[in-house]
Amino acid sequence: MTTSQPVEIRISAPGKVILHGEHAVVYGKAAIAATLNLRSHLTLKTRLDSMIQLELPDVNINEEFSVAALQEGLQSIDCGSVHDPIPASEEVISLIKKFAGIDIENNETRMLAIVAFLFIYYGIFKEKRELPAISVYIKSDLPVGAGLGSSAAFSVSLAAAILQFAGYIDSIKEAEGASTWSTSDKRKINNWAFLGEKVIHGRPSGIDNSISTYGGALRMQNGEITQLDKMPTLSVLLVNTKVPRSTMTLVAGVRQKYNLYPDVMEPIINAVEAITKRTEDLFKFSADTMSPDDVKTLGDLIDLNQNLLNAMGVGHPTLDRIVAAAKKHGFYSKLTGAGGGGCAFVLIPPDTSDSHLQYFNQDLNDQGFDVRWKTTVGGQGVLREL
Amino acid sequence: MTTSQPVEIRISAPGKVILHGEHAVVYGKAAIAATLNLRSHLTLKTRLDSMIQLELPDVNINEEFSVAALQEGLQSIDCGSVHDPIPASEEVISLIKKFAGIDIENNETRMLAIVAFLFIYYGIFKEKRELPAISVYIKSDLPVGAGLGSSAAFSVSLAAAILQFAGYIDSIKEAEGASTWSTSDKRKINNWAFLGEKVIHGRPSGIDNSISTYGGALRMQNGEITQLDKMPTLSVLLVNTKVPRSTMTLVAGVRQKYNLYPDVMEPIINAVEAITKRTEDLFKFSADTMSPDDVKTLGDLIDLNQNLLNAMGVGHPTLDRIVAAAKKHGFYSKLTGAGGGGCAFVLIPPDTSDSHLQYFNQDLNDQGFDVRWKTTVGGQGVLREL
Repeated sequence: MTTSQPVEIRISAPGKVILHGEHAVVYGKAAIAATLNLRSHLTLKTRLDSMIQLELPDVNINEEFSVAALQEGLQSIDCGSVHDPIPASEEVISLIKKFAGIDIENNETRMLAIVAFLFIYYGIFKEKRELPAISVYIKSDLPVGAGLGSSAAFSVSLAAAILQFAGYIDSIKEAEGASTWSTSDKRKINNWAFLGEKVIHGRPSGIDNSISTYGGALRMQNGEITQLDKMPTLSVLLVNTKVPRSTMTLVAGVRQKYNLYPDVMEPIINAVEAITKRTEDLFKFSADTMSPDDVKTLGDLIDLNQNLLNAMGVGHPTLDRIVAAAKKHGFYSKLTGAGGGGCAFVLIPPDTSDSHLQYFNQDLNDQGFDVRWKTTVGGQGVLREL
Repeated sequence: MTTSQPVEIRISAPGKVILHGEHAVVYGKAAIAATLNLRSHLTLKTRLDSMIQLELPDVNINEEFSVAALQEGLQSIDCGSVHDPIPASEEVISLIKKFAGIDIENNETRMLAIVAFLFIYYGIFKEKRELPAISVYIKSDLPVGAGLGSSAAFSVSLAAAILQFAGYIDSIKEAEGASTWSTSDKRKINNWAFLGEKVIHGRPSGIDNSISTYGGALRMQNGEITQLDKMPTLSVLLVNTKVPRSTMTLVAGVRQKYNLYPDVMEPIINAVEAITKRTEDLFKFSADTMSPDDVKTLGDLIDLNQNLLNAMGVGHPTLDRIVAAAKKHGFYSKLTGAGGGGCAFVLIPPDTSDSHLQYFNQDLNDQGFDVRWKTTVGGQGVLREL
C-alpha cells in the first residue's frame, strides 16, 4: 500500500538470551531461550522522492537505491509469494549483492544486512502495483555479534514494518504505547524474518527470530521449537565480556571432551537437562511475579549450570570474575550462549534495592566491565510502537 | 626393651590428600586418598634420668612426666594387650587428662595429643618389666587442622617409634637412608595409630592413619578401605587458603542442595564417581612414571571435579583464585577435602621446568598466597630414617 500521505511506522523487536541448555542442546537435550528486552528500534517513513534508504547507524550503513533501478535490477529474482516465500538462493543473494554494489565474496554481517533488507523489501512489495519510496532507520540496543540475537531483531523488525506498511498484516492496540499482531500475522512476520536470518547467517536455527517475534520463552530440542505457555519477566544485568570467541570451536571442544570422557560428561549433561526441566516447570507453575523462593531456586539453578558449563570447558576467566562479583553481592550469574567469553547475565531479584544494584554496578565498573544493560528477560516480542 | 646404651630412633610419617571423591563419598561413592609427602618427623631418645618428655614445638607443647608417677597414675587403665589393644574409653581419657593436669573439658587437639601420647606409651610399654625414660620430639611439615592428616602422621610416627623401641616391630632396611616394616608390623603400627587418632578425633574414619602407615593411595567406599595396588608419585604444589571452614557445615550444605535438587545433584555426584573411577584405572594401568597423555588426563579430571565441587557449593573465591592462577600457567588444581576454603593442590607435570614453576610460584606469592609446599603425592608411608 503506497500512499501520498506521509506515513511513519515504528517497530521494536527484542534480542534473546539462552537461559539454560546451551551445549546440552547439541546432545539432544532441551534448551530454553527467552527474549532480552534490548531491542532493535525501527522507523519506516515514506519518502517523496523515489528512493529507498536503509540507515543502520550502529554498523555505519546508510545506503540509498532508486526504486526504478531496484525494480529493474531485481525483477528476475524468485522469492515466492508474500504468503509463501522461498528462501534466497545463493544466486539470488549474488544478484542482490551485484545490484547493491557489494563484492560477491563479502559476507560481512553488515553487508548481508543490506542484502536481507533488499530481499525482504522486494519480496513483500513486488506483488504491489508499484514499489514504494521509503526510508528505514534501525538503531539497536543490542551489541552486534554478541550472541544476543541482534540480527534476528533486525530481521523481525524489518519484516514487521514492511508487512505492516504493505497492508499484509494489521496491528492491534494492546497496551499503552504499543500494538501487537494476531498469531497468524506474527507467523507471517516470523516467516519473512527467518528468510532475512537465512540471508545473514546461512543456516540459522530459527530460534532467535521466533523468540523476537513471539516473545516470552521458547524450548528447543532436536530442532523442534515450542513456545513456553508461561514465562515471568525477570530483571537481569547483562555484562559483555567483549572476549571474542568462536561458537564452532567451543562446540567442538565440548565434543572432544565428551568423546574422551563420556562417563563423566554424560551425567554432567544430564544434570544440565534437569536444570532446564526444573526451570521450565518453575515458569509453568509460578505466578506472573515470582515468589522469593522461586527466585532463590532460579538463582541456585543458574549457579549450578554455570559451574557445569565451566566443567564442560566453555568458561573463561573473565566470566568467572563476573560470576564471582555477582556472588559477592548475593546475585547469581551465568554465561549465555556458546560461552568462552561472550555475555553473562546476572539475575536481579525483584526485591533488590536500587542502592544495592548501584553498588554492584559500581563494583563491576571498577573491575573494568561495561555494564550498560539493566534489562528484562521473558518480555514481549515484536511491537508496533505508537 | 630398655637399655643402658643411649638409643635414638627417627621416624617420619606422611600426611594425606583426597584426590577425588570428597563429598561424593557421603553418597556411597568411592573416594581416593593418597599420601602427601609433608611429614611428621619424630625423634625418640632414651634418657638417663627417669623422666618421660613429649616435645611438639609446632603446637608449643613441652611436657615432662616422671616414670614413677606415670606408673602409678595410669596403672588402673585398661588398654588391652600390645597385639590386641582396646580403644581408650572416655574414662581412660579422663584419667589420663587428670594425670597430665589437663582440664577434663579441654579437648584442644594439642592437649589430646598429650593424652594420645601417654595412652600409646603406657599401652605399649606396660607389659615390659619397667617403663623406659624417653624423650619424644615431633616436628611436622604439615599445617595443623588443614585437613591434611597432621594428627594421623603424629599418631603413626609415635606408634611406630614406640613399637620399634619396645621391640614389638622390626624395621627392615629398604632404601638409602630409610627403613620400613613388614606388612604385619605395619598393621600393628596402624592399629595403635588408629587408637591415637580416636583419642584425638573421637570417631576418625581410619583413612588418615592407614594412608600414613601404608603409603601410596587408598580407596574408601561405604566405610571400607582398600589399598590401591599401584600409585605413581605425582608432583604437586600445595596451597593453603587459610580460610577457616567447618566440614560439618559443608557436608550439611551439600545435603541440603541434594534434597532440594536431587535430579541435578545425583548426576553431578555420578560424574564425580566416574572421575574417581577413571583416576583409579589410570593409576592401575599406568607405568610408575606417567606418560604426558596420562598427566593430561589427570589434569582434565582434576579440573572437571573442581568445577563439580563448585556446583555442589563447596568452593570458595580464594580457591577459585588459586585454580585460575594455576590455569593461567597451564596447570590444573582442585580443592582437597571438605572445601569451602582449606587447601588446594596443583598438579605439576613431570616435564615442568624449574623456571616455569618458579614463575607460577611467584605469581601465587604476588597474589598473597603462601605456597611453601612443593611436594609429592602417592609416595611412601611411615619410614624409619637412618
